[in-house]
Amino acid sequence: MSVTFAQGFSASGVAAGVSAVEGKKDLAVVVNNGPLDVAAGVFTANRFCAAPVQWSRKAVADGHIKAVVLNSGCANACTGKEGFQQSADTAARLGELAGVPAESIAVCSTGMIGDLLPLDNVLSGVEKAYGEVSDSAEAGELAAEAILTTDTKKKTVALEGAGYRIGGMVKGSGMIAPQLATMLCVITTDAKVTAEQARAALSAGVETSFNRIDVDGCMSTNDTVLLLASGASGVEPDAAEFNKLVADACASLSRQIIGDGEGASHDIRVKVTGATSEDAALACARAVAASNLLKCAVAGNDPNWGRVVSSLGTVPQDVAPYDPNNVTVDVNGVRVCDGGRPGRPRAEVDMTPREVHFDIDLGEGDAEATVWTDDLTHEYVHINADYES
Amino acid sequence: MSVTFAQGFSASGVAAGVSAVEGKKDLAVVVNNGPLDVAAGVFTANRFCAAPVQWSRKAVADGHIKAVVLNSGCANACTGKEGFQQSADTAARLGELAGVPAESIAVCSTGMIGDLLPLDNVLSGVEKAYGEVSDSAEAGELAAEAILTTDTKKKTVALEGAGYRIGGMVKGSGMIAPQLATMLCVITTDAKVTAEQARAALSAGVETSFNRIDVDGCMSTNDTVLLLASGASGVEPDAAEFNKLVADACASLSRQIIGDGEGASHDIRVKVTGATSEDAALACARAVAASNLLKCAVAGNDPNWGRVVSSLGTVPQDVAPYDPNNVTVDVNGVRVCDGGRPGRPRAEVDMTPREVHFDIDLGEGDAEATVWTDDLTHEYVHINADYES
Repeated sequence: MSVTFAQGFSASGVAAGVSAVEGKKDLAVVVNNGPLDVAAGVFTANRFCAAPVQWSRKAVADGHIKAVVLNSGCANACTGKEGFQQSADTAARLGELAGVPAESIAVCSTGMIGDLLPLDNVLSGVEKAYGEVSDSAEAGELAAEAILTTDTKKKTVALEGAGYRIGGMVKGSGMIAPQLATMLCVITTDAKVTAEQARAALSAGVETSFNRIDVDGCMSTNDTVLLLASGASGVEPDAAEFNKLVADACASLSRQIIGDGEGASHDIRVKVTGATSEDAALACARAVAASNLLKCAVAGNDPNWGRVVSSLGTVPQDVAPYDPNNVTVDVNGVRVCDGGRPGRPRAEVDMTPREVHFDIDLGEGDAEATVWTDDLTHEYVHINADYES
Repeated sequence: MSVTFAQGFSASGVAAGVSAVEGKKDLAVVVNNGPLDVAAGVFTANRFCAAPVQWSRKAVADGHIKAVVLNSGCANACTGKEGFQQSADTAARLGELAGVPAESIAVCSTGMIGDLLPLDNVLSGVEKAYGEVSDSAEAGELAAEAILTTDTKKKTVALEGAGYRIGGMVKGSGMIAPQLATMLCVITTDAKVTAEQARAALSAGVETSFNRIDVDGCMSTNDTVLLLASGASGVEPDAAEFNKLVADACASLSRQIIGDGEGASHDIRVKVTGATSEDAALACARAVAASNLLKCAVAGNDPNWGRVVSSLGTVPQDVAPYDPNNVTVDVNGVRVCDGGRPGRPRAEVDMTPREVHFDIDLGEGDAEATVWTDDLTHEYVHINADYES
């Protein structure tokens, strides 16, 4: 269903000749047909942010975007002024077609860092894609397909509120880490919301979703999450419900990224409870989720709690107060570490499910946080030793 | 040559039945025969530090240690009061044999986290090892062998000052990250130094060596570096020379750890220059050295500078001020990124040498720092998915 699930949006996905893979769909367009053109965006914190990020951050600053063009196959990152001009030219072309200024167009790119776009292919691709836009479910799926790189499957979401809808698509598989993940995401809604409502809902939703997944600890140059609102339903949503649905859409899409992490054979949930604050819980969860050794152990179906506590022990006392002698670790429901010491035998843990849960209780307070990550497999190394990205 | 290169030291290495590998040498003893028994120690910052670390930190606090017992095969970490008592018992047994209090004995363990030691084996191993100590070069080599785990080779050092000597051994291959690395290290000297001199030399030496290597970003529970001084040469060394030699010994041993990193096919040097401060340079070097994506790229002989700058871009502006548009990256001497944009073609880079150099110039100041790491290979995943440690 993707971005066209919400009323007032049309989309398309075409093969424009950006990707090195012959015939791969690599360019998508999402058009907001209104009546509103409300938009909010969240972008990578990377200081080497890509040209399209620089462009789109400015474009969305006023809370309005008419359409988005996204390409896979080239990140247009670290490409200097020439790269920025390419993003501007791309926006200008779609703007001409849609009858709006370039500044009403957002641009997203993903792929290899350090290469300029094949601009002629992109510009003719924009024309082709704009000529094919449709509000059908199929068109939404084509757009979701065109933005993929090392992803092995499309990632979309479709949710219904009271009289309005939320749709979305995302790409992301490697170079995924807080803050944000290496991904491009477009969420659409036909709810009638203001730019401020959209911004607040998106910021809150991203914080507990895209900012809490970590495939490989590597922050991207191109991360972009956009929320577009058409108002086509005519419904002014209840704020709490709307915020929750946007957060649910972010959670679903980010969870799908973990489910398709490069080379992953397990999706790992690290949940830390009993912390003195959410920040403390989050710092602990992030430290555990970042452990290469733990991620390898999970790949080998080993419920290695020693690698959990050794990671936990790297978080400074002033960041997360706790007593190591009070910490418990459950792996898939079995308390293998109890009070900082060995608990139940590891052999009791069933590691065969795709999803592996590490539940860590610091025994110090009431706050909690959850981070998702993937295991570290031979396939991850293969993909990233052999794929130039 | 190892720890017996310096006069006044004897050592041994025996198979005590701690390791799961039948017949593997797994217990070493190093005895300081004096006349001095000066010692200094640096230990892991991990809050889940192991029982032997808790024991040895106290033992060395007064600046004096008579002997050290080290075992591989079991870390005695996260083992509670019972584990601490095992370290105390081990120290007591060697103390009895050497005719000194238990508090004059340091204990080091490495291996699996969360298991208690097979104490009977350890205690009989201590007796056997103490019975075999010798000041021969061979005895030093046996000790260096007995402390290895996933290491594939012994790591030793032997340096000569003006009338005195420094010897040393280290183990470490995985779970290697700042601060410190997962390793046990004993450095010996026959120089006549005070506890304060030893402490100062060791702290400074560790800071630019063991604290600047990173195999896999994972901090250990058992890291220990000990410096023992016998004074047997009768020579009071020049302070500057002594400090430099201790630092050289630390540098040599830590470099050997990188050369034997788990599964590594390349040793990677990340040198950051042009920073506003050493801390800024170090933060940048650590961020680059920690990138799984970059480490995979190197494993695939890909001089992927995009993964260098995307890691560099995660360091906050207030930590390391620089302008992305002024940054250059040389890989093995070829400037592939110039002013934040593509420079020379990657194809010009020869990635076949074992050692790969990333030289990053921030173009902002005069400070620099260097961090060493390894590439991330299939073999690393294999070792850590299949080996319980």
